[in-house]
Amino acid sequence: MTAENKAFQKVTESTATNPIQGNPYGPNPSDFLSNVANFQLIDSTLREGEQFANSYFSTEKKIEIAKALDDFGVDYIELTSPVASEQSRKDCEAICKLGLKAKILTHIRCHMDDAKVAVETGVDGVDVVIGTSKFLRQYSHGKDMNYIAKSAIEVIEFVKSKGIEIRFSSEDSFRSDLVDLLNIYKTVSKIGVNRIGIADTVGCANPRQVYELVRTLKSVVNCDIECHFHNDTGCAIANAYTALEAGAKLIDVCVLGIGERNGIVPIGGLMARMIVADPDYVKSKYKLPKLRDLENLVADAVEVNIPFNNPITGFCAFTHKAGIHAKAILANPSTYEILDPHDFGMKRYIHFANRLTGWNAIKSRVDQLNLSLTDAEVKIVTTKIKKMGDIRPLNIDDVDSIIKEYHGEINTPTLVPKMTKSDEEPLDLSDEPAAKKVKL
Amino acid sequence: MTAENKAFQKVTESTATNPIQGNPYGPNPSDFLSNVANFQLIDSTLREGEQFANSYFSTEKKIEIAKALDDFGVDYIELTSPVASEQSRKDCEAICKLGLKAKILTHIRCHMDDAKVAVETGVDGVDVVIGTSKFLRQYSHGKDMNYIAKSAIEVIEFVKSKGIEIRFSSEDSFRSDLVDLLNIYKTVSKIGVNRIGIADTVGCANPRQVYELVRTLKSVVNCDIECHFHNDTGCAIANAYTALEAGAKLIDVCVLGIGERNGIVPIGGLMARMIVADPDYVKSKYKLPKLRDLENLVADAVEVNIPFNNPITGFCAFTHKAGIHAKAILANPSTYEILDPHDFGMKRYIHFANRLTGWNAIKSRVDQLNLSLTDAEVKIVTTKIKKMGDIRPLNIDDVDSIIKEYHGEINTPTLVPKMTKSDEEPLDLSDEPAAKKVKL
Repeated sequence: MTAENKAFQKVTESTATNPIQGNPYGPNPSDFLSNVANFQLIDSTLREGEQFANSYFSTEKKIEIAKALDDFGVDYIELTSPVASEQSRKDCEAICKLGLKAKILTHIRCHMDDAKVAVETGVDGVDVVIGTSKFLRQYSHGKDMNYIAKSAIEVIEFVKSKGIEIRFSSEDSFRSDLVDLLNIYKTVSKIGVNRIGIADTVGCANPRQVYELVRTLKSVVNCDIECHFHNDTGCAIANAYTALEAGAKLIDVCVLGIGERNGIVPIGGLMARMIVADPDYVKSKYKLPKLRDLENLVADAVEVNIPFNNPITGFCAFTHKAGIHAKAILANPSTYEILDPHDFGMKRYIHFANRLTGWNAIKSRVDQLNLSLTDAEVKIVTTKIKKMGDIRPLNIDDVDSIIKEYHGEINTPTLVPKMTKSDEEPLDLSDEPAAKKVKL
Repeated sequence: MTAENKAFQKVTESTATNPIQGNPYGPNPSDFLSNVANFQLIDSTLREGEQFANSYFSTEKKIEIAKALDDFGVDYIELTSPVASEQSRKDCEAICKLGLKAKILTHIRCHMDDAKVAVETGVDGVDVVIGTSKFLRQYSHGKDMNYIAKSAIEVIEFVKSKGIEIRFSSEDSFRSDLVDLLNIYKTVSKIGVNRIGIADTVGCANPRQVYELVRTLKSVVNCDIECHFHNDTGCAIANAYTALEAGAKLIDVCVLGIGERNGIVPIGGLMARMIVADPDYVKSKYKLPKLRDLENLVADAVEVNIPFNNPITGFCAFTHKAGIHAKAILANPSTYEILDPHDFGMKRYIHFANRLTGWNAIKSRVDQLNLSLTDAEVKIVTTKIKKMGDIRPLNIDDVDSIIKEYHGEINTPTLVPKMTKSDEEPLDLSDEPAAKKVKL
C-alpha cells in the first residue's frame, strides 16, 4: 500500500452523516430487507452482450471472456440459448466443461423445445423468459396469461426434474399488468423456482417504480429476486441499486453494459455504486483491479472504445482540474473522491496545466520539480501560468518551463550566464517558444 | 412524418399500467409536488464542462456552444467564474451581449471579491457555492457554519441589490450534516434567494437519499430547488429524475455530461429520461432533433468520441438484433422501444445479418429486396444464414447473397443458364465466395 493510498480517508454511506441515517426515529425497519451488502452478479456478456450490434464472439473468445469473468468473481455466467444456432449449443457445452467457479446458466424462451435442449448442455441452471406486457403478448408471441402460466409450469417442472437451477422471468415487466405479474410469480414461486426475474426490457423504469415493484414482490414470493435493467434512459445502475435496497438479490450485468440497443447495467458502473455502499463486501468478493483488463478484453472483442466518461476506467474518472478541487484533493483525496482509485488499480491525476488551475496545485508541481519557492512566489508564477492558459491550451512542459524560468529569475537575478560546456553547447537560436527555455 | 413514424405507438408512464398508478388507493398526494412535467435546465457545459480534463474553449467556441444551447432551448447557461482568469471574465461579458433567449449565469465562490466582479459582467444571475461537508470545511476553505452563513448573507444581499437573480448552493450536500444544511437553507430562503442548490459533488448520492433530502427541503424553503449531480457511481440521471419527482425544479446538465472527473448529468440522457415521463412537455420545450449536432459540436471541441452506448445518439441506441426483438419491432416498434428515434431525428435499424437473427427479420429483408418467398421458404433460408453466421461475422451483402442464391435455386430449378450477353460476359471464374453469386 502506497503512502498516497494510506492517506485516503474512506467515506461510505454507513459512516457518513446522511439524511436517511440522520432520521431521529431510528432506522427504517424496511431496510432489513435490503441486499445492498449481500448481492450477487449474473454476468450476461455472453448472452445479452451477444445481442449487442457489434458482437461476434468466436468459441475461443467466449472461453477467454468466461475465464476472465470467473477470475473477476461473478457468481453466474449466462450464455446464449443453445437453440439460437448450432455453434451456440456447442459453445455452451464447451464453457460448461471449463470447470469454472461461477455457475453457468443458459437463457431460453419459455418453451419445452428449448428446455429439452438446454438441460442437455451441462449448465447449472436455466433462465426462462416470456413477455407479459400487452405489447409483447399482442405483437411477439400472441399468447394470453393462462397460456403463459401453463407453459411456465411445464417448463419449470421439467427443468427441476433434471436437478438444476431454474429462474422464471417476465419480460417487459414494468409495462405488464401488476395483477397479472403477481399471479404468475405467485404460481411459479409455489412450484419452487430458485429465482424469479423482473426485466425492464425497454429501459423505461425509474428508481421509485423499481422499489415499489420489488417491495411488492417480496410479499408475494419466497424465492430470490433477480433484476435486469436496460439503459435506454440512463437509469440502469440506479435502478439496480434501488432494487437491491428493496430486497432483490441478483443483478444482471454485462461488461461495459453491452446488449440490445445501448445495453444494460455495466459491471464496472455497478461496482462503483456498490463499493460506496459496502466497500468490505465488494472488495472481498470481486477482484476489482482486474476490472480494467476485463473491460479492455471485451471492448477489443466487440471493437468499441471505452467511453471517455466510463465510471472508474474512463480516462478522466480520477482527474481533478479546477483549482479549488485540486487544492482540497492534495490535502485529502476524500474531499472530491467517493471512490479510491487504488481499489481498482488506478491512479488519481491532478490536472494543473490550465487556466482554471490554482496555486495549491502549482505548489505541488513545484515540489515535484524539487524547486524551492515561497507561497507568495508560487502565487506569482500561478498568475503567469493562468495568463498563458488564457491564450492557448497548456501541457505539462509549458507549465514546467514557466515555473523553471521564474525560479531561475528570482534565484539568479544578477548572475551572468554560466559558460559551462559552452564549447560543446552553443546558444540555442531555434524558434522554440521562450516559455520552454530554462534560463541558467 | 413517415409511415414508419406514424406506426409508432407511444407508451408513456401516464398511459402505461404500472405498479404505482395501479395503486387502488389512488394517486399518492405527495406526487402533487412533482416537477417531472415542469422542470428547467441549467446548462453548465461552459462552467462545469470547462473543468473537464480535455476542455479548452476559445472565445469563438464558447459563443458557438452558447448559441447552440440557446437554440436547443435550455433555460439557463452557466459560465465559468469571471475571476478564474482575465479571459474568462471577457468571455462572460461577450456571451451576455449575445442577446440569447436563455438567461446567463456565472458561478462564483461565496465571497464578496468574486461577487463584485460577477455583477459587473452583465449576467442575469449569479450562482454562489460554498462547501458545507466536514471534508470541505476542514480541507478546502477551513471555515465553520457561522462564517458560511455570514458570508452567504453578505453576498446574497449584495447581488440582490443589483437586481439580478441569486442562487445559493452548498457543495458536497450529501455528506453535510442535515441540521447544518437545513439551517443555512432556511436562512438564505428567508433573505429571499431565487433558488437554493444542492450538489452531489463527489457522486455518492443514490435516488432514495435524493428523494428524502429534496422532500425535506421542500418543507424548509419557499424558493425553487436546483440540483447538481456528479456521475462517479452512474446514478446522475436517475438522481436528477428522482429529485424532480420530489419537487426540485431545475437540473444542472452538460452536453455529454462533461465535467470534473467523469462529469455530471448529460443533457441527452436526461432528455431520454424525461421524454418517457412527459413527452408533450419535453417535445414542446426542447428542439430534440438538434441534440445530435449539439453533442457533435462539443465532442469535437473537447476531442472525445460520442460513447458507443450513449443514450439516443450512441451508434446502436436504436439497433435491434435478436430474432425475437426484430420480429416484434417489425410488428410494432413500441414492443422494444420506449423512445421513438424520429423524435430525435434518428432512425431505427434491424440488425439481421447475424446468427441470432430470426425468420421475421429475414422475411422483412426479402420484402425489401422485392423477392417472393413463402414463410416456409424464408425459414429455410434463415437456417442457411444462421449456419453461415456461426462460421464468421456476416454483413448485409452476405445475407443478401444467400437470399438471392436461394431464391434463384427454387425459382429456376430446371432452367439451363440463360446465355443473354454471354458474348460480352464470360463465366465468372474469380475466387469470390460462392454465396455472393446470384444464379440466373
